[in-house]
Amino acid sequence: MNKEEALRKYEEWRKKINAYNAVMNLAYFDKETVAPRDAADKRNEVLNYMSGEIYDIETDPELIKAVECLKNEDLGELLNREIYFVSKSLDDVTKFTKEETMEYQKACLDAWETWYKGKKDNDYSVFAPSLKKLIELQKYRCSKRNPDKKAYDVLLDDFEESMSVDKYEPFFKLIKEEIIPLIKIVNTKRDEVDNSFLHKYYPADIQRKFAKDLLHYLHFEGWGYMGETEHPFTDGIFRDDVRITTRYDEHNIASTIFSIIHETGHAYYEHQIDPKYDGSPVCMYISSGMHESQSRFLENYIGRSKAFWVNLYPVLQSYFHENLGDVSLDDFIRGINASGSSLIRTEADELTYPVHILIRYEIEKGIFDGSISTDNLNVVWNEMYKKYLDIDVPGDDVGILQDVHWSNSSFGYFPTYALGSAIGAQLYKTMCEKMDVNKCLTEGNFMAVEEYLKENVQYDGAMHDYNYILKRATGEEFNPSYYIDYLKNKYKELYNIK
Amino acid sequence: MNKEEALRKYEEWRKKINAYNAVMNLAYFDKETVAPRDAADKRNEVLNYMSGEIYDIETDPELIKAVECLKNEDLGELLNREIYFVSKSLDDVTKFTKEETMEYQKACLDAWETWYKGKKDNDYSVFAPSLKKLIELQKYRCSKRNPDKKAYDVLLDDFEESMSVDKYEPFFKLIKEEIIPLIKIVNTKRDEVDNSFLHKYYPADIQRKFAKDLLHYLHFEGWGYMGETEHPFTDGIFRDDVRITTRYDEHNIASTIFSIIHETGHAYYEHQIDPKYDGSPVCMYISSGMHESQSRFLENYIGRSKAFWVNLYPVLQSYFHENLGDVSLDDFIRGINASGSSLIRTEADELTYPVHILIRYEIEKGIFDGSISTDNLNVVWNEMYKKYLDIDVPGDDVGILQDVHWSNSSFGYFPTYALGSAIGAQLYKTMCEKMDVNKCLTEGNFMAVEEYLKENVQYDGAMHDYNYILKRATGEEFNPSYYIDYLKNKYKELYNIK
Repeated sequence: MNKEEALRKYEEWRKKINAYNAVMNLAYFDKETVAPRDAADKRNEVLNYMSGEIYDIETDPELIKAVECLKNEDLGELLNREIYFVSKSLDDVTKFTKEETMEYQKACLDAWETWYKGKKDNDYSVFAPSLKKLIELQKYRCSKRNPDKKAYDVLLDDFEESMSVDKYEPFFKLIKEEIIPLIKIVNTKRDEVDNSFLHKYYPADIQRKFAKDLLHYLHFEGWGYMGETEHPFTDGIFRDDVRITTRYDEHNIASTIFSIIHETGHAYYEHQIDPKYDGSPVCMYISSGMHESQSRFLENYIGRSKAFWVNLYPVLQSYFHENLGDVSLDDFIRGINASGSSLIRTEADELTYPVHILIRYEIEKGIFDGSISTDNLNVVWNEMYKKYLDIDVPGDDVGILQDVHWSNSSFGYFPTYALGSAIGAQLYKTMCEKMDVNKCLTEGNFMAVEEYLKENVQYDGAMHDYNYILKRATGEEFNPSYYIDYLKNKYKELYNIK
Repeated sequence: MNKEEALRKYEEWRKKINAYNAVMNLAYFDKETVAPRDAADKRNEVLNYMSGEIYDIETDPELIKAVECLKNEDLGELLNREIYFVSKSLDDVTKFTKEETMEYQKACLDAWETWYKGKKDNDYSVFAPSLKKLIELQKYRCSKRNPDKKAYDVLLDDFEESMSVDKYEPFFKLIKEEIIPLIKIVNTKRDEVDNSFLHKYYPADIQRKFAKDLLHYLHFEGWGYMGETEHPFTDGIFRDDVRITTRYDEHNIASTIFSIIHETGHAYYEHQIDPKYDGSPVCMYISSGMHESQSRFLENYIGRSKAFWVNLYPVLQSYFHENLGDVSLDDFIRGINASGSSLIRTEADELTYPVHILIRYEIEKGIFDGSISTDNLNVVWNEMYKKYLDIDVPGDDVGILQDVHWSNSSFGYFPTYALGSAIGAQLYKTMCEKMDVNKCLTEGNFMAVEEYLKENVQYDGAMHDYNYILKRATGEEFNPSYYIDYLKNKYKELYNIK
């Protein structure tokens, strides 16, 4: 195969895999949002069949030949980068037979069903056998993919290239040493910041109306759609078709608001990549940590600021006059920033949030190094919540089964949430040096924030690696001290702690 | 290829085509319900690419060999029937190249976009060029598929096997001669039945809540999902996953109610086929006319009866007390049965409904025999509405662009709506002889109706042809006189016409 033939083959293949991935993404989005439960078996059979089709496309021998040929050519910066990604993916996917791949996909589909049922029935034992099977499969896969590395390091690297237990340890040590003691103090002073008004009765129907206004305020229109799911997520189909989901908790308006802002932050990253990368493997976020930095940035550094709410709060009040009519903007802002140990990660305040992640990180690490068994994992979970957050877990539905991630085998993803929060703090510090963020927001210019993120992080997708982008945006490599300082300063001030 | 090899090949192929069709159906459902408009081009490119993939599967040379082999074997009733359908479909699909097929699919996708835009902008000229192109492509396709037949007859046969202009003519003559004169009289007596309460302000949010109760009353739960679209439709993904859609007109509560009941009628036909046919081409409705008979049956013969509303009307009143609190059940029933010429087919009363179909039938017939041009088709449309229904059409959005069908090239479908209404009348007459429908409904036993339809029509899917099923269910072949008599009796009584 010569270079021209190889390029033609690669371009045909790219079109094909993109088409298949798009329809499969749509089918998964449908499954998670609206698909009737009765047809779960038939639907999963179809999804599994199609995963086999995709395996055949991904391992097309003609593609392998083409990539072998193109790997050694100088094709210009963009195509070189594309071939790098395709080649890397080929290395992984060709290590498994079609049968192995389909078995693994089926285990994920089955696990999602048992997770869903277990959560509904508040019973970890429904999910436990699926989880055990998935972990066995993942251990096997890691050992084949990279026999020289520890399994959990292989997985951490999947979501954040070059990350490992060794590299995460100092970061989580900081959380343990600097943040947990502060949480324990704040927990004793919870009465000092009132947020009870956020837990009054907020009918879902009216929340849906406010959600529309919120999405409008965030300029999430025309290029996206928001569905409803038990567990909110973002799914980019195309650059101009990014799906997010939310849920409506009638006794927690903050949960709706901040999950929508969080997912919209993700959505912008998918949306604001340079259109010249459309259809390319480069039209992708660079890493999960960077993705989470964009969502956590919008949710916390922007979405919990007074400037963000100056123009929006009256709209929220107009929908819920009875609950919020007497709550001043300042009291509302204090309320949405209040801290205190709680059960649900996605609803946690900024201070306790990284400890939810620490718990998951330690459990995953233990599962993969064999020091923790899946058999009574809910007990381990509950003990850790008690130890680190001083909190009793009343049931598996709000404990170990709260998150969807393990049901689709996304072990190693959780740490990127804390990493993303810390990257966000670093980005936020630089941003505030370069522009008057609060002035923009107060003047109703929300898009200035997303324009900044687009120009400094998002537009070149996966063209450069995470370290390069972070250094370009902030002038230095990852430095968690901004995050730790931000949390300590913010919460010491809010709770009058010396 | 021997019989065993051929059977194995056929079974593998069946699994494959079912999987592709399922994900494509989901992608189309997504496109019509929630997909953001900005990505229309990218989405259509993907859908078009996948239609090429499906072409390759449908024309797989190994399948052709297998079918050739199996056609002459005695495989038992079910497999014989399956091979009949696959062979028939092969005859059609192999008459066109992949490029021709993809061009045609692309023309449909493009036409949907211009239809959608034209309807929104109230401007037929936006849609006209796409329509013209589609008709040219359809004429070409018909000439290749069956050069001995007139194009429109080929299309009529697609939706209702063995139907043709010659066979539809006597039916539509009855509509013209028996129904139109009655409509003209009823139009002069519109004041005699009040339905103004149906056109008060009904907020969409509250309609959505009632819609949930209505679906619960219809036992449409667990095996289906209802989305929202401009133009309501039904889309069966699996027997246990049937999608319907509706729209909410805030000044026409009857439009919501009867479109939901109509689509649920369709949904039952997809749902109640014998599970033993799962995955088989026999797990299919037998014809569009029969499909429409099930939806029009539920919408009209059941859904507009007093017995249907005895238990449901208080629920409706509770949501809209201000509008309906003073309207008695009897007055409500008279109101939802009131007649009078109107613009929108899907909202038309039973009496004027077949004339909406007559107009579309005459236009389609004229387009395909060349006597009507697409250039000023909106003018032709408006003239016919004036002539047959005494009504002025104020804009294309409520005129020629109201229906989605022509945008996806479904020429020849419309007549099956009138045919289905007439089949429904014939089925209803027999049903009333066999069971006390009103007693069942009054006692809250709605499922007795669907059980009857299941046993008498739906359960054996496409195993037998339409004539066989109708004769088995009613004891005679299609006889439109039941429909004509039903309409004349009902509306003469309602409007005191001698």
